[in-house]
Amino acid sequence: MNHKMIGRFIAQILSIEGAFMIPALLISLGYSAWSAAQAFLITIAVIAAVCAVLFLVCKKAPNALDAREGMICVGISWIILSLFGCLPFVISGEIPRYIDAFFEIVSGFTTTGSSILSDVEALSPGILYWRSFSHWLGGMGVLVFLLAVAPGSRDKGFTMHLLRAESPGPDVGKLVPKMRKTASILYLIYIVMTFIDFLLLLLGDMPCLDALCTAFGTAGTGGFGIRNDSMASYSPYIQYVTAIFMFLFGINFSCYYLLLLRHFKPVFRDEELRTYFLIVAVAIGAICLNVRHMYGSLEETFRHASFTVSTIVTTTGYGTTDFDRWPAFSKGIIMLLMVVGACAGSTGGGLKISRLLYLLKSLGRNITQILNPRRVKAVRYNGQVLNETVLANTNAYLVAYVFIIIGSYLLVSLDDQSIGTTFTAVLACFNNIGPGLEAVGPTCNFSHLSDLSKLVLSADMLAGRLEIFPILVLFSPATWKK
Amino acid sequence: MNHKMIGRFIAQILSIEGAFMIPALLISLGYSAWSAAQAFLITIAVIAAVCAVLFLVCKKAPNALDAREGMICVGISWIILSLFGCLPFVISGEIPRYIDAFFEIVSGFTTTGSSILSDVEALSPGILYWRSFSHWLGGMGVLVFLLAVAPGSRDKGFTMHLLRAESPGPDVGKLVPKMRKTASILYLIYIVMTFIDFLLLLLGDMPCLDALCTAFGTAGTGGFGIRNDSMASYSPYIQYVTAIFMFLFGINFSCYYLLLLRHFKPVFRDEELRTYFLIVAVAIGAICLNVRHMYGSLEETFRHASFTVSTIVTTTGYGTTDFDRWPAFSKGIIMLLMVVGACAGSTGGGLKISRLLYLLKSLGRNITQILNPRRVKAVRYNGQVLNETVLANTNAYLVAYVFIIIGSYLLVSLDDQSIGTTFTAVLACFNNIGPGLEAVGPTCNFSHLSDLSKLVLSADMLAGRLEIFPILVLFSPATWKK
Repeated sequence: MNHKMIGRFIAQILSIEGAFMIPALLISLGYSAWSAAQAFLITIAVIAAVCAVLFLVCKKAPNALDAREGMICVGISWIILSLFGCLPFVISGEIPRYIDAFFEIVSGFTTTGSSILSDVEALSPGILYWRSFSHWLGGMGVLVFLLAVAPGSRDKGFTMHLLRAESPGPDVGKLVPKMRKTASILYLIYIVMTFIDFLLLLLGDMPCLDALCTAFGTAGTGGFGIRNDSMASYSPYIQYVTAIFMFLFGINFSCYYLLLLRHFKPVFRDEELRTYFLIVAVAIGAICLNVRHMYGSLEETFRHASFTVSTIVTTTGYGTTDFDRWPAFSKGIIMLLMVVGACAGSTGGGLKISRLLYLLKSLGRNITQILNPRRVKAVRYNGQVLNETVLANTNAYLVAYVFIIIGSYLLVSLDDQSIGTTFTAVLACFNNIGPGLEAVGPTCNFSHLSDLSKLVLSADMLAGRLEIFPILVLFSPATWKK
Repeated sequence: MNHKMIGRFIAQILSIEGAFMIPALLISLGYSAWSAAQAFLITIAVIAAVCAVLFLVCKKAPNALDAREGMICVGISWIILSLFGCLPFVISGEIPRYIDAFFEIVSGFTTTGSSILSDVEALSPGILYWRSFSHWLGGMGVLVFLLAVAPGSRDKGFTMHLLRAESPGPDVGKLVPKMRKTASILYLIYIVMTFIDFLLLLLGDMPCLDALCTAFGTAGTGGFGIRNDSMASYSPYIQYVTAIFMFLFGINFSCYYLLLLRHFKPVFRDEELRTYFLIVAVAIGAICLNVRHMYGSLEETFRHASFTVSTIVTTTGYGTTDFDRWPAFSKGIIMLLMVVGACAGSTGGGLKISRLLYLLKSLGRNITQILNPRRVKAVRYNGQVLNETVLANTNAYLVAYVFIIIGSYLLVSLDDQSIGTTFTAVLACFNNIGPGLEAVGPTCNFSHLSDLSKLVLSADMLAGRLEIFPILVLFSPATWKK
């Protein structure tokens, strides 16, 4: 194991985190929120000290990583980011218990949006900013950021192993050749789209800090609200803008890249993108029919249905209405969308639509082969033959996915909540959604759960964001042998 | 498609069903239950007429089947068995609605044990006998029975394709060479074990009909009770006997075969059997600790915990206590056991423990290969290298399993029940358990569900019993093309 390399890597990640706390510090100072400002200052100082020590100790480290070290790097980085990232909450006293603060920041970085706060509006502006900014940073990936901006040449394997471990989706094949450049372009698209969203929100008379935080949560498909009723009290214009941008941030970013390069055909023919549009359209239609009687006008029905579908399928988690009061069928669709998730290569979570397509196609192939054992058939996706290793990994992913849900359910069930609460708490955290149903529904929060459940759900959020394997590798005894 | 062969096959199956109704007819006559006797007589006459026509039309049929026709045969046979098997319920007026009667008999043949009856004790003895006997017939497989007893030589492929489609478990490889003989021996073991269970129940002063029906339900791991409180009012002795026999019927029957041949080593080293013992022991221990405060004595706690674990893991579904009132953790374990199921090659349902082991092992292999892409590793089970096709099919099975649960959940959720009710209704039917939790819990029944839900759950029971693929093939458009 290349300990020094990992150490230096963590130092780099931590220094980025420290640097990103400076705007939060300035906002706290600007609003004269002294205790919050002090908290950020202390945290930045602690991070600087830790970084200095790490840089000194791990000065001479080789610039090479294998797949296992890549996964370990990513897993450890995210845990350490969270361990330090929650310090401002604790030190400022705004979230006094460390475990709650840890849950909250993990929920932020993993773009989940589940909160333990019952009164969000009591937080000071700098803390609110930092909480929402964690979504933005986590959405695109802090390691991707590092690779995009950090100076110095690295070997190809290094970049590839890290990106593969941090990027969502079953296959990052497309991005491999010029990975460093690609990372920069993707981040640029991300920044520009966030900025447009921010401007459009400002145009709707949203206060500046609200618009900034909402844009961060939308771009990262995070979902931390800055009002106690999430998005319910904002104007229909703002709700529509947010619904559309959540939907846009759920699309594979390489589609935008291709559009920029004027490659329209592969985008319009992309099976994942088509399925994404289809799923969203069908879900909105079905829910509209099912909840029509609950709202005054057709427009209101459509607005709440489309906002909720967009917020859930992209795993954001904002809310304009209490969908826990919807009929069981609509709640069933919501639970299904929670599992489906957004497109691979977007900032959304869940299983990812492409992974679902792979699974369905390989199921179809297997049925054909059971019926005609002598026929050899390849699985095709977007016109190309799918690599069998990718298929095998996707199947393994589903196995791990199911087992993690079952294991987490059992541990969280020790809190003695209803089946619906326990199950959707696990689904909502593991798929990085935010709210679940019943006692963790859109009008409730996660504060009443036990510390054990908060830890389990934090691990689920990390496993969900990093797509399971880095966390499995980190906690597998075989990794640490010899 | 070999239509005549399938037709003759169905005629054979139906004539077996008609023959097995004769004891029920005699019991009805013996108890002077005239309307029930009349119902059985009419049904037998109808079946005889249908069989005569089918035999005449499909007289000259070749004795060969391919994999696809084998699956279609099995799927259609089970549906037709159920369509005719529920006639006595309807004609006697004891279950007046056809859809309810169909649900009840599908639940019987698939050894599920979910009931739409709120007052079981109102049924006449002959009907009760037929209802419980359907468990016994469905448990070991009516086609296996046909192959074991029917005269005439058939080619190897014929027997193999049918057995493969009807037998539970991921792989029937072991049984292939002398399949006809093996089927007879397995049925003999089944009959002898059922008889011993019956005798032991009689020794506990159980009335003769009660003992017979209970033994049928235990052997087929079905779970239709003949009292309204299932097994709660019987003596602890009877409860222990039933718990032990349910456990024994959840073991792979080829283990008993090997024991008869004095091959002890492979049985004691069998990974599935060891895991089965381990799961049961851990589950009983955990539940005992969790529900200790709810019962008067340690013996009572242990009795209810072990009975419930045995009834759920073997997917039987008898009850001695209302486990819906247990804490959420115990209910979580119950839901987990519902999914796990019993051993392959037993009469139990669920995913099957060997399939679970295959999935876990292939997940472990994939993680190793992600970390060391150049290392080729085979998956070993009971010391032997597992065939990659079996592994691929097992993975496909999980995909189909998850999608069927999600699809069924959505359809049943149209009834607007709680998440717990809807989810456990699907789990309980699809895994052939019987009772779920909440509004379909051990003290409730399925009568309040809509007709659509009853149809969906009937299809789930069939898909669960026949292990998905025959039903998928039957309903896939590709099967019926050309």
